[in-house]
Amino acid sequence: MQFGTVATRGTTTAAARTPEGWRALPAPDLSGHLADGGLLDDTAPLGELLDDAEVLAPLPHPGKVVCCGLNYGEHIRETGRELPSHPTLFVKYADSLVGPTDDVSLLAGTDVDWEAELAVVVGATIRHADRDTAAAAIAGYTVANDVSVRDWQYRTLQWFQGKAWDDSTPTGPVVVTPDEVDPTAGLTITCRVNGEEVQRDSTKTLVFDSADLLAYISTFTTLRPGDLVLTGTPGGVGTARDPQRFLADGDVLETEVEGIGLLRNTIRLSPNPSLTTRA
Amino acid sequence: MQFGTVATRGTTTAAARTPEGWRALPAPDLSGHLADGGLLDDTAPLGELLDDAEVLAPLPHPGKVVCCGLNYGEHIRETGRELPSHPTLFVKYADSLVGPTDDVSLLAGTDVDWEAELAVVVGATIRHADRDTAAAAIAGYTVANDVSVRDWQYRTLQWFQGKAWDDSTPTGPVVVTPDEVDPTAGLTITCRVNGEEVQRDSTKTLVFDSADLLAYISTFTTLRPGDLVLTGTPGGVGTARDPQRFLADGDVLETEVEGIGLLRNTIRLSPNPSLTTRA
Repeated sequence: MQFGTVATRGTTTAAARTPEGWRALPAPDLSGHLADGGLLDDTAPLGELLDDAEVLAPLPHPGKVVCCGLNYGEHIRETGRELPSHPTLFVKYADSLVGPTDDVSLLAGTDVDWEAELAVVVGATIRHADRDTAAAAIAGYTVANDVSVRDWQYRTLQWFQGKAWDDSTPTGPVVVTPDEVDPTAGLTITCRVNGEEVQRDSTKTLVFDSADLLAYISTFTTLRPGDLVLTGTPGGVGTARDPQRFLADGDVLETEVEGIGLLRNTIRLSPNPSLTTRA
Repeated sequence: MQFGTVATRGTTTAAARTPEGWRALPAPDLSGHLADGGLLDDTAPLGELLDDAEVLAPLPHPGKVVCCGLNYGEHIRETGRELPSHPTLFVKYADSLVGPTDDVSLLAGTDVDWEAELAVVVGATIRHADRDTAAAAIAGYTVANDVSVRDWQYRTLQWFQGKAWDDSTPTGPVVVTPDEVDPTAGLTITCRVNGEEVQRDSTKTLVFDSADLLAYISTFTTLRPGDLVLTGTPGGVGTARDPQRFLADGDVLETEVEGIGLLRNTIRLSPNPSLTTRA
């Protein structure tokens, strides 16, 4: 099944995408549906058919957004490193997330780079989970682009300040349940800039798969329904090219995972991004 | 003035510490008081005197807990580095926080180390703040210990997985407003393990002070009332000693900042810390 958060008739709602179209669920967004104990399966109480649904970021309020770096073999090699024994983890905030067609709003004069990623949606509360428990806690998968501000990322030893910019990380368009897609069997992941393909790989080459990551993270912190885990990006990022290549104001960034969907976002670089401070 | 969160008569409440004792504020904790638009000043509507207040973590639900590393000159030198041009930032979660007398619950067999820190409490919503705006957004100061799991911290390039363990970070006992304490003028910060002093410095030697940090962080993400910024630790941590020294089960960790107060926490190391998964 496929689930998401949509705008309709001046409000937002969690919704399921059925063959006929989007049907409302009784929560203002998918974060709320999962926080209320709702599941992403056929027990979800489908409401009316929505004839004007605009697709938003599926999970606007995750409590935790944990990201894994260096998790595709080719990308690890392009950074000159060896295959890791442990996942490299860092974070974003819910504030970082935007929807599948929203602008990515960042600071003019910075080195903005793409990172197409498969993201996992947590569906149960887990701590000290083994691999099987972690696998059973996967509610579904969505698409993300871990857009990175490289000059800030590499100012210090810690990447956080290049990764957690508000309004930087497209997500969506839908959350697809594990009965429909199997990343370990291999889903093609691609990234395009103004129509030119810049990344292509298969999720089957992930060093640490979704269940590995959830189990590992749950060793040190509790994961809860609606939390997001970004699984890392394949080779082809702009900072590793020769010459390096970064995104410019007006560039169109497309991010796609086979069987899940496509994000299409315009890069907006300004002296004061997100000047309308979020409430 | 001094504010906190206390347990009283089977519930919790935000409270102000007056000369007569704790007085209730109309919110379940200080995070709620600040989120509701409450200020930490003499406009706070003081309620009844509480005769049985037990002091808890002052801010149990910060949306963001941003930490600065490598921010005291001596600690930077002991790690073999030069004074930084930008703050090194990483994060914890609200789940990481415990109160001023709570146990610190971590995994047996790991390298658990101390990091006494001054913490800043954000009192206003800021983005793209200059230094003056950031200074005006400081609601107060509290004490924290950025207890770190060194072997996990150094497994990969990113420190997050050694820093964001649930139930690892003592905070409190109170939030003291800027009219009462001035860290830039110098507050003595100390850490003791089983009564033996292991860290001592003055907050006046911070490379980036509280206003610097809030302004810098607000460049990339919105800070809101109740968010916490930990300002870094002085020299004397266990991992930099020769031989290295880590905390053992049952050790008593004391963390103190002059003019704010004292944390006294017992280290508990077990195969399954926090087995009672948080709701």
